Amino acid sequence: MVVFLFYIRHHLVYTNTSKKKYGGDSIGELQFEQVRKILQELIESKSFIKTAKALSELAAVEAAELLEELVENPAEILIIFRLLPKDFSAEVFAFLEPEQQESVASAVSDEELKHLINELAFDDKIDFFEEMPANLVTKMLSLTNIQERKLVNQFLNYPESSAGSLMTIEFVELVEDMTVKEALRHIRNVGEDMETIYTIFVKSKNRKLSGVVSLRELVIADEKAIIKDICHDNVIYAYTTDDQEEVAEMFKRYDFITIPVVDNEQRLVGIITVDDILDVVDVENTEDFHKMAGILPLEEEYGKTSIFNEAKSRFLWLLILMIGATFTGSIIQRYEEVLVSVVILSSFIPMLMDTAGNAGAQSSTVVIRSLSLGTVDVKDFFVIVWKEFRVSLLVGLFLSVINYLRIVFLLRMDAMVGLVVSLTLFLVILMAKTLGGILPVVAKTIGIDPAVMASPLITTIVDTLALIAYFQIATHLLAI
Amino acid sequence: MVVFLFYIRHHLVYTNTSKKKYGGDSIGELQFEQVRKILQELIESKSFIKTAKALSELAAVEAAELLEELVENPAEILIIFRLLPKDFSAEVFAFLEPEQQESVASAVSDEELKHLINELAFDDKIDFFEEMPANLVTKMLSLTNIQERKLVNQFLNYPESSAGSLMTIEFVELVEDMTVKEALRHIRNVGEDMETIYTIFVKSKNRKLSGVVSLRELVIADEKAIIKDICHDNVIYAYTTDDQEEVAEMFKRYDFITIPVVDNEQRLVGIITVDDILDVVDVENTEDFHKMAGILPLEEEYGKTSIFNEAKSRFLWLLILMIGATFTGSIIQRYEEVLVSVVILSSFIPMLMDTAGNAGAQSSTVVIRSLSLGTVDVKDFFVIVWKEFRVSLLVGLFLSVINYLRIVFLLRMDAMVGLVVSLTLFLVILMAKTLGGILPVVAKTIGIDPAVMASPLITTIVDTLALIAYFQIATHLLAI
Repeated sequence: MVVFLFYIRHHLVYTNTSKKKYGGDSIGELQFEQVRKILQELIESKSFIKTAKALSELAAVEAAELLEELVENPAEILIIFRLLPKDFSAEVFAFLEPEQQESVASAVSDEELKHLINELAFDDKIDFFEEMPANLVTKMLSLTNIQERKLVNQFLNYPESSAGSLMTIEFVELVEDMTVKEALRHIRNVGEDMETIYTIFVKSKNRKLSGVVSLRELVIADEKAIIKDICHDNVIYAYTTDDQEEVAEMFKRYDFITIPVVDNEQRLVGIITVDDILDVVDVENTEDFHKMAGILPLEEEYGKTSIFNEAKSRFLWLLILMIGATFTGSIIQRYEEVLVSVVILSSFIPMLMDTAGNAGAQSSTVVIRSLSLGTVDVKDFFVIVWKEFRVSLLVGLFLSVINYLRIVFLLRMDAMVGLVVSLTLFLVILMAKTLGGILPVVAKTIGIDPAVMASPLITTIVDTLALIAYFQIATHLLAI
Repeated sequence: MVVFLFYIRHHLVYTNTSKKKYGGDSIGELQFEQVRKILQELIESKSFIKTAKALSELAAVEAAELLEELVENPAEILIIFRLLPKDFSAEVFAFLEPEQQESVASAVSDEELKHLINELAFDDKIDFFEEMPANLVTKMLSLTNIQERKLVNQFLNYPESSAGSLMTIEFVELVEDMTVKEALRHIRNVGEDMETIYTIFVKSKNRKLSGVVSLRELVIADEKAIIKDICHDNVIYAYTTDDQEEVAEMFKRYDFITIPVVDNEQRLVGIITVDDILDVVDVENTEDFHKMAGILPLEEEYGKTSIFNEAKSRFLWLLILMIGATFTGSIIQRYEEVLVSVVILSSFIPMLMDTAGNAGAQSSTVVIRSLSLGTVDVKDFFVIVWKEFRVSLLVGLFLSVINYLRIVFLLRMDAMVGLVVSLTLFLVILMAKTLGGILPVVAKTIGIDPAVMASPLITTIVDTLALIAYFQIATHLLAI
């Protein structure tokens, strides 16, 4: 079976038989499905040694995924995990979900645990410590040396979502007065365990960040040249306390692979690489999606939150909006006699309210997103308002004409009712879209997150306005 | 003035006076503001030579931004642009907005234009050609050599948002049977203009992608070793026709810096680097935000769309939803006599509709986002439904109790009315949240983009259900 597995991999992918391990060794989608099937059979027949052997042929991330997906019994996961080659098992460990990491970490011997922790890249290690329960962290910290323990503690204290909590300390740094020859020797000596050796930062004698040089430039430079003379002196950097969203903006703006992180005395303390930023961008976008639906931020993924926390995150805004909608209700109450005298009017209330909400949500979404991407700014206030106003004129005109034709010719209702409803619709779209454009910018100007001004809040606001407009127009045109 | 500017930069940033240019030379936020002010004064006093000199001290992206922001007259932009050092002006050109690029490209001489185009990185060049009007593209293509013209035409034919349109052809490739020494010599010879030389892909003699090796590994390998023996044979790759979203997923999963792109005969034709993926992630997220607000995808940024296109993108969904809301209206019509006999009931309609819409939008947003991030999958259908059901029980219970207390004790209304409204509210939240969880998964299962099942559509659906429930409960409990 294992032979067959290898056959598939080498037949389908390449015929090269080199067996050197590499983080990127992997297989395509199609082959991945086939490997999954074969592994499933191996696991069902409890052939754990063969399973481990097959897994060790995959990229660590794939092995971790398949292990978690195919093996349901935690004890069996542990068995297979311990049968993996030692270094590979440490790689796989880094990709396991926190629950699995915890179950593995609690079960293995101190010696094994020490190996697992030591093999983790520094930033993975911090993530890991952050996820584990306190008693396990204490045990694990006792297995690391004092120096590292101090560093870990320092990292665990950086505010969440700060550049400090995102950076790694595994980087090469050069001193200004080194020669190129010394620098290259230093890189060769320490480069093995570093996150990157392609962008190298330079510090001055007082340990402040003072320059950047690429490995490419070092390699082509004269061996006797002094680093200070060949490095670039204006470096884009982040502070440990900078928010990760700002760091992501830097990466987007400058197209960098690596950005250095300094403390408040300008001393180089870490680097952030762009692959970690991809996750940040996802997290930040999820936060925006949730905020825009009236959900308070949650720490964990959807699959992992408790029912109670999930309910808590949704409760507050629903309550605020529910109370807000009471005002809309009181409008209806105030105009009761209008509704009683022309009963048909009440049947258009949902359509007017929904369209108002939708039109407002469209505008606010577009503006919120543009603000967050930086394609428009608060100083474009009048540009935005003027644009939304003209867009709403077009959209409003179209929709109210269609609506009028439908009411008068399709539903064969009174032309005056058609006029009242369509005129209201037009005004409502105008108001909703213009407000949808204005409110996010106003929010940003006064320091509130524009994302709050999304669909739910806009809907509640424009619903009230829509009903007032509706009843006012009806009272006048129908002479009630 | 210029002296002062330099003083600021060097005083605030570093004292190193090395003047070597580098894409990353730049300044912090604080200094950027000061430089902006000084440049503004220079431009206002028409000191264009000094302006150009000051700009050339910045990173190209910053110079482009400031040029566009501070100089309003296109003729003046052109004057300053032509005063920039030749190579730097080409770098700045790549960062200008398409409109500015077009105005510069139409105004400069053929010789200058040729230089600008040739200095652009290949992927920037393709972006540029895609943005320019046809007559300008023809003129520019006539200035490039035949070979490059063919390549450009080929790239312009890749489907938009495909890996092919995203990749660059500026990469180093090695042949399997090269020695390490030959490989390093080859890299030194061609490496200068390449996007990256740190991850290098290997092809077999029949030109198929067969391996990957890092510069780090090459440097430490034995000079006489054969590439085939030291490279890694299982490579993650994308096809030219793959959607950019899939490519972004690969980067997120494997934490790569570079991914190779092959044609359908497995031949290596380009590479994609992670910095280009950051933009892709933003674009894809914007698409989702817009879809979820019922906006059809737009090609351009908000600031650049025409009023007509913007209106068109918002019109269709508003129309569909407007017609959909008619059903909601017809429910009210059908239960007219209920409303007439207990008039107070109508004032709770907005609150019930809004809360239904908001509760449904919360659930659908959370589920849509989880589906798009891959943290849940369609196979988790029952997990999602069960979770949403329990969350809605909690949220519904809280809100309806508060609502009952408010109606009976605060508004001092009839206890039975309070019961009808609160019971409806409870049921409505239950329905809305459960449907909000179910519909996106159903959509994905039948091959529709789950993002369509967001707030606007959910709102229209649950509004109808909410009103039916309301009137049914009222009829029974109030014995109308």
